[in-house]
Amino acid sequence: MSELFLRHKPFLEKALDACEKRYAWTAYKESPSSKIHGKEIPAAAKKAFDEMLGKPLHMDLPGEHGRVGEEISPFTEEPLGVTYPRVDIDATFAAAREAQQRWRRLSVEDRVGVCLEMLDRLGQPAALFLNAHATVHTAGQSFIMAFAGCGANALDRGLEALAYAYKAMTDVPGEADWERRFGAAPEIHLRKRFRLVPRGTAVVVTCATFPQWNGYPAIMANLATGNPVVIKPHPKTTLPVALFVRTMREVLVENGMDPNLVTMVADKRDDPVTIELLHHPDTAIIDFTGGPKFGRWIEENCPNALVYTETAGCNSVVIESTDNFQGMCDAVAHSLCQASAQMCTSVQNIFVPRDGIDTERGHVSFDEVCDTLKGSVDNIIGNAGLAAFLCGTLVDEGIYKSIDAMTAKANSRGRIIRESGRYAHPDYAGARTATPLMLAVEASDKELYGQEHFGPISFVIACDDAEHGLARATEDVREHGAITSHVYSSDDGFLERAEDAYHSAGASLSCNLIGMPINFAAAYSDFHVTGLNPAGNACLSDLAFVANRFRIVQTRFPASTAP
Amino acid sequence: MSELFLRHKPFLEKALDACEKRYAWTAYKESPSSKIHGKEIPAAAKKAFDEMLGKPLHMDLPGEHGRVGEEISPFTEEPLGVTYPRVDIDATFAAAREAQQRWRRLSVEDRVGVCLEMLDRLGQPAALFLNAHATVHTAGQSFIMAFAGCGANALDRGLEALAYAYKAMTDVPGEADWERRFGAAPEIHLRKRFRLVPRGTAVVVTCATFPQWNGYPAIMANLATGNPVVIKPHPKTTLPVALFVRTMREVLVENGMDPNLVTMVADKRDDPVTIELLHHPDTAIIDFTGGPKFGRWIEENCPNALVYTETAGCNSVVIESTDNFQGMCDAVAHSLCQASAQMCTSVQNIFVPRDGIDTERGHVSFDEVCDTLKGSVDNIIGNAGLAAFLCGTLVDEGIYKSIDAMTAKANSRGRIIRESGRYAHPDYAGARTATPLMLAVEASDKELYGQEHFGPISFVIACDDAEHGLARATEDVREHGAITSHVYSSDDGFLERAEDAYHSAGASLSCNLIGMPINFAAAYSDFHVTGLNPAGNACLSDLAFVANRFRIVQTRFPASTAP
Repeated sequence: MSELFLRHKPFLEKALDACEKRYAWTAYKESPSSKIHGKEIPAAAKKAFDEMLGKPLHMDLPGEHGRVGEEISPFTEEPLGVTYPRVDIDATFAAAREAQQRWRRLSVEDRVGVCLEMLDRLGQPAALFLNAHATVHTAGQSFIMAFAGCGANALDRGLEALAYAYKAMTDVPGEADWERRFGAAPEIHLRKRFRLVPRGTAVVVTCATFPQWNGYPAIMANLATGNPVVIKPHPKTTLPVALFVRTMREVLVENGMDPNLVTMVADKRDDPVTIELLHHPDTAIIDFTGGPKFGRWIEENCPNALVYTETAGCNSVVIESTDNFQGMCDAVAHSLCQASAQMCTSVQNIFVPRDGIDTERGHVSFDEVCDTLKGSVDNIIGNAGLAAFLCGTLVDEGIYKSIDAMTAKANSRGRIIRESGRYAHPDYAGARTATPLMLAVEASDKELYGQEHFGPISFVIACDDAEHGLARATEDVREHGAITSHVYSSDDGFLERAEDAYHSAGASLSCNLIGMPINFAAAYSDFHVTGLNPAGNACLSDLAFVANRFRIVQTRFPASTAP
Repeated sequence: MSELFLRHKPFLEKALDACEKRYAWTAYKESPSSKIHGKEIPAAAKKAFDEMLGKPLHMDLPGEHGRVGEEISPFTEEPLGVTYPRVDIDATFAAAREAQQRWRRLSVEDRVGVCLEMLDRLGQPAALFLNAHATVHTAGQSFIMAFAGCGANALDRGLEALAYAYKAMTDVPGEADWERRFGAAPEIHLRKRFRLVPRGTAVVVTCATFPQWNGYPAIMANLATGNPVVIKPHPKTTLPVALFVRTMREVLVENGMDPNLVTMVADKRDDPVTIELLHHPDTAIIDFTGGPKFGRWIEENCPNALVYTETAGCNSVVIESTDNFQGMCDAVAHSLCQASAQMCTSVQNIFVPRDGIDTERGHVSFDEVCDTLKGSVDNIIGNAGLAAFLCGTLVDEGIYKSIDAMTAKANSRGRIIRESGRYAHPDYAGARTATPLMLAVEASDKELYGQEHFGPISFVIACDDAEHGLARATEDVREHGAITSHVYSSDDGFLERAEDAYHSAGASLSCNLIGMPINFAAAYSDFHVTGLNPAGNACLSDLAFVANRFRIVQTRFPASTAP
């Protein structure tokens, strides 16, 4: 297996270098274009996906006793009909424990080699296309988004975490010589051996919208450091998880390893098993991605395990001024539309001075800002192909209710800038689509905007001035968390104050991003989630994400007798 | 201040190298010999110490309202009469928060430079001598032990933690350039800035026996990463803590920093404030050294903070065979005597096969092992100077009761190998001394030996064979924890099985240590505490000890406008 390590080592080395210098790099193919992949592979993947529907997916998991599966495609509103093993939890943990016995004793290079092979396998075109179809019809993303965001971008985050795990583990030497005198006694010469010991079994809870993006790094970080992984997928988005679990298990078997190093416990929404997994006596590590309420509960109620969370927050934009008014509005509108604002990096609260802002066109009123933002959104939604590509669908039909409820509230408070509606998907007539609901409210209407609204609901918030907006936005960071924050200003002094205010609130900041998808967080470059505010306690990826997943034990011998 | 960094940089670099290769090194003077220090400095330190007694110690802490101080010298049984500020807790945290504002914004080099200067100052001969006197008359150690173990050895652990903190922080670059294309749009070129942000205020709880040994590393790890430190000393051992706090504050002031980055909250045994400190809303980090029961409580009940603990366990010796019988007995006896077995590395449970062991002298019976161990202890105790140097005194008069209670129990179960008594201290007639109580028990007498007995109480445990002893010893590791474990065997196969058994139980192991103080744990070389068993969750020092004490925030700008 060190053969695997040697084969993939250049990728690992490049990832380590990219993490160190934090430039743009990807190890995988982001584009599904037939210019790159030809037509056969995509067609075969589509056929493979279609053939999976309506059937049990065989995974050969330990402790199977029955089947579960309740996914509905947000594009067709039809059940996928795929079922997954329903497994006995104790049997799963027992199998993980058993599988760990050999895995933990492998060299760092051997374990990392197998992990690199898993990523490489998942990054092969056939796997990327199949993964994209499965993600489309569960998470509800557009195909291109599912291909890149849940393919290459997620694999890159996995490789990044693996690189950090490798770095942390190789910081510990395998052995050492130690010589000293104690008083007048003869010199002592000891040989020391250091061994890395994994914590134990890790439970990785993936979310409905982007299960791979946090799943891959958590799995890589755990496996590389020797910990078996029990994955708990969201009942709405199980298929892509089951597929990557299957691939990982295949790679393990092909390399003579126990496949139960990676298992999956599927459940039903009305019969969840998550807490049972989290509190299982074998659970030593928890990686959670999902809602902030449950994330906080886990942080406070699982002292049995190391807990790493990424949840969500009130992502904000503070607009002070701009020298590219249309570009700014287009950039913000992109975030309001992308993945129907179901990304952890989607913005929700847009603070704009009540008296308007200075732009390259001169002064622009608050209402003009609202109108231009609306226009930018309308431009996207009005182009059926672009809307379908950018917005995809809603992962949860419950979001319609949130949109309706907020629309109703806005009739008494604030003003509707843009009503939400469905856009007609060019390929799927019944697709569960929703266009952005945009409200204009006052800074005092905190009960409306002062919490996360999951889905395409946003607020343009009239504040006294930009400083006031900054104060309100950063207060929300402290209270509700934030994963991304944006400021637009052509005043260097304001940018500096904004940076300081957001950093002091424990949030990262993007300034004047225009001409790119502002939701984008780049593996190897962007530290994703600060861990300093309620939107999560862990970062993808830093040394803290990996360094405590293993521990160090040592043996001391007299050097003369050390074997 | 980077001047401080430059001045001390060679030490930091040497420490980084020593941590990487884990050889023996010390940055400070371990010996109090007048050959090194002359006579003036020691005499002046003694005078300074004597002049402190019976007086208030002025520390200029924020929020002072009254005085506390109840220390009694274990050597003279007289109160020291030194009083410390009693401080308002909210005022202390407010001052720490205020002090952090500037400190957190300093460069890594600036902060580390100040920390290096603190260690250097505490490592000056005058400070080492004063620290030793203060430690002698609180923790009850012999002078030479207090000088080395609570001086150089503790400072080395501090420098080691500082080196790890530096390594973890410098793993994050200050800035980066990032360029990529999204689809057909023009290339995006971003500049990124990364800033390290401390967690918040750290509460460091030091223990009665060795407050510097865990205190220095915790303080260095916190300060270097930008977190102010509130120290809660044990009411029995406050003076050495107060002295190093005073020195650290002086260094801060001399370098233009706010002294309230390091504060101290002294309390009384019958009016403790620890829990109030741990649960203070500002508390973001907790470093605890002390008893396992309270340590466990903290681990389970302080989700408000990152928690690092070092407590204690049932340290064991498994004797299978030896080719140096007397040397082995002398080595174990040294541990039973050193610091009256009040060290976290003192051994307590000595497993010996009921049928005896093979040695270079031939087969030796269980009773002969007991007798020879007793003889080795008697040899130490019989030499008044050596007893005083090695055993010191009891930090807590309550240990006499434990000894009496165990002696009484042994009259019905097991057999007394060696009764505890007082040895006559050559310099202090009334010194609170106790010689080792040694009991011979059966492996089935777990109620006697299967828990930590703090102080000079040990058990020679008759087991069916060495494998049985190994099984029992590692079971105790899992249940009660262990900080050191020893095995003596001339059988390579047994050593291998022992290594595997202890490592699997989450404990480090020393094999056949003879001719050295086996309690010794070396900074830069020995990973102290594995974090895998109940004796603590943190290690001195590894990346996990430091990497989560700070977080990373970032700012992204278009490169063209980045300031």
